[in-house]
Amino acid sequence: MNDSCLFCKIVAGAIPSTKVYEDAEILAFMDIGPIVKGHTLVIPKQHTERITDTPVGVLARVMHIVQKIAAAQVNGLKADGVNIFQANGKAAGQVVPHLHFHVVPRFNTDGHSWNWAAKKYADMGEMTKLAESIRNALDHT
Amino acid sequence: MNDSCLFCKIVAGAIPSTKVYEDAEILAFMDIGPIVKGHTLVIPKQHTERITDTPVGVLARVMHIVQKIAAAQVNGLKADGVNIFQANGKAAGQVVPHLHFHVVPRFNTDGHSWNWAAKKYADMGEMTKLAESIRNALDHT
Repeated sequence: MNDSCLFCKIVAGAIPSTKVYEDAEILAFMDIGPIVKGHTLVIPKQHTERITDTPVGVLARVMHIVQKIAAAQVNGLKADGVNIFQANGKAAGQVVPHLHFHVVPRFNTDGHSWNWAAKKYADMGEMTKLAESIRNALDHT
Repeated sequence: MNDSCLFCKIVAGAIPSTKVYEDAEILAFMDIGPIVKGHTLVIPKQHTERITDTPVGVLARVMHIVQKIAAAQVNGLKADGVNIFQANGKAAGQVVPHLHFHVVPRFNTDGHSWNWAAKKYADMGEMTKLAESIRNALDHT
């Protein structure tokens, strides 16, 4: 537990939340500022900040529950679709520094659209060079 | 393999891609319309459409590679942050009906912002009722 972390306080029950699912490792609760009503957050109880510092087994457990919540939004809310979103670092829009996956029910009529502002590469060479930089930095263990 | 699926064709090599990672089960390749340059897609080679119809073990493998690509974008591209995004269904903005996770490197200066248009619940009762509908539809197996 991180004493200054909002989500650790929610896990500990020091701050109330509207829970959707809970087990020994995982908590899912309602986002009070929903992108679309029904928007749920799934977190590991163990404090980690980014996906990159989360043990792979913990991530697998989190995703299993993300999958179940997505299915329950479709079956229980009659959602037409679901978005999964996760931010790492302030540059990515992460506000609470405790790993959390947003599970957002989507409806044909919900009126929301992400700002999907796709860019273009100057040429294939620019893309190939970036791919090489990522590939060379990959942890192959 | 689904013969009409763009990503199955990329897996089969019938359509070229700029690969970042590949193993027997997973492929990661560059998105040619990047939200931020370096934007990578991670897919299972096995054709599944939505997170909800993906075997849990396949999802765990996909996320393990998502995690590695995120780390490589930070280490190899010096990204300040990373977004993970995934869409299920047309209502959620899914264009290619083959499960794919977007791994988007973020920089303090990249100028991108998601349209994070948070709504408000009319009252606690509205939120509690939706939570209950999700909870009641949860698969607890």
